[in-house]
Amino acid sequence: MKKKTKKVNAAILIIGNEILSGRTQDKNIAFISNWLNTNCGINVKEVRIIPDVEKTIVENIKNLSRKFNYVFTTGGIGPTHDDITAKSIAKAFKLQYGFHKEAYKILENYYGKKKFNDGRKKMAKMPITAKLIYNPSSAAPGFMTKNVISLPGVPSILNSMIENCKRYLVKGLKVHSNTINLFTVESNISKQLGLIQKKYNKFVDIGSYPFFRLGKIGVSIVSRSISKQKLKKVNSDLLKLVKLKKIKILNI
Amino acid sequence: MKKKTKKVNAAILIIGNEILSGRTQDKNIAFISNWLNTNCGINVKEVRIIPDVEKTIVENIKNLSRKFNYVFTTGGIGPTHDDITAKSIAKAFKLQYGFHKEAYKILENYYGKKKFNDGRKKMAKMPITAKLIYNPSSAAPGFMTKNVISLPGVPSILNSMIENCKRYLVKGLKVHSNTINLFTVESNISKQLGLIQKKYNKFVDIGSYPFFRLGKIGVSIVSRSISKQKLKKVNSDLLKLVKLKKIKILNI
Repeated sequence: MKKKTKKVNAAILIIGNEILSGRTQDKNIAFISNWLNTNCGINVKEVRIIPDVEKTIVENIKNLSRKFNYVFTTGGIGPTHDDITAKSIAKAFKLQYGFHKEAYKILENYYGKKKFNDGRKKMAKMPITAKLIYNPSSAAPGFMTKNVISLPGVPSILNSMIENCKRYLVKGLKVHSNTINLFTVESNISKQLGLIQKKYNKFVDIGSYPFFRLGKIGVSIVSRSISKQKLKKVNSDLLKLVKLKKIKILNI
Repeated sequence: MKKKTKKVNAAILIIGNEILSGRTQDKNIAFISNWLNTNCGINVKEVRIIPDVEKTIVENIKNLSRKFNYVFTTGGIGPTHDDITAKSIAKAFKLQYGFHKEAYKILENYYGKKKFNDGRKKMAKMPITAKLIYNPSSAAPGFMTKNVISLPGVPSILNSMIENCKRYLVKGLKVHSNTINLFTVESNISKQLGLIQKKYNKFVDIGSYPFFRLGKIGVSIVSRSISKQKLKKVNSDLLKLVKLKKIKILNI
């Protein structure tokens, strides 16, 4: 695995009408994004949610795979007619779509020859040169095509497979974060916070997020940086501001 | 309000590093999408989540506002340095960015002249010709610029404002849906399901979503259409399939 000396980014492409319509609450975005940063130092820079429409999937795969180091897709790799992710990715990259020999063997072995029906066979269809992502919970593998990694939409299955993506990823620099929760309102500190951000621009991203807890209004200040040292400096500046303004810190 | 004779669509643009990093679980996508379909017959066709970066926001506003009837943005309209949505939208449409007279009055009135500090004043800055979306819970208004509606990121505040968007929206044809939950696996019905989808293509979208409930594996079949009649026909075909395959239905 290469040395971690550079920033590596990724996009997530959620494929599925059920997420778009609001019927299903997505859980994969936060999971993948957290996992990528914590385990691989890879930062998610864009997420898109799109319907099960071939043309739309093809366009988005082309666009995102050019813009980012990696693209993670979720959904649309099952046995039914609305599962068109594998075919669309083959189309986007002009690759041959058909039975992937190893995937076919894995599935045939898992179901047994008698129960290996057409629906199940469909899950072995993908760009035939794809690299497989093994699936310890329900056999049907995910796959990597160029820089695009395709995973299933069911969160529990996706979660069980994510570690098997690691071998294909070049690690990047991890983004560290530091959070202070303050019992104040944003407008009370916005000016000074802006100045601190300006001072550490390019090195640290400071975000400000209101919260409601224990019946009180508060603000979470989240600083993010690849440099732990710079984060410490920002934290010390923030604590000075907190002292100056006599703001109570919420310890959680 | 215009008669409902056509399809109307929308995109959602979630602006915020905290959602991208996985720190915060988004709740606004499902809420807005559900509300738009149920109350306005407007269908969300694409969602994007992007960071607090001006260039990225400008590009996405330009792109999505051309492609869809409406764009809903969430986040980035507060008082801190990382709240750059209003400025970026003004830039995207080449509109003057400054104090919006009515928004300024609303906020000055809400806080009182003494407590109306620079941070709070910033929340009155937007494209000066924008139409306001009133905010019953914390005063700072959302706004509509061309076909782009900007709302805050905090779910409870957003939820309290959504009804005030209605006056600016042209209603479309509502998409009705019908769900059957079956105790079976997808591959057992995928072939026949594909045939039913083919039969009603263009009129009905049929989706198949695995679930785990009561310790058993199942599949939710969700049919969506603007025609209730066509939905009934699909439902009757599905029930025939269920009977043929002797599948148990889960009533919830």
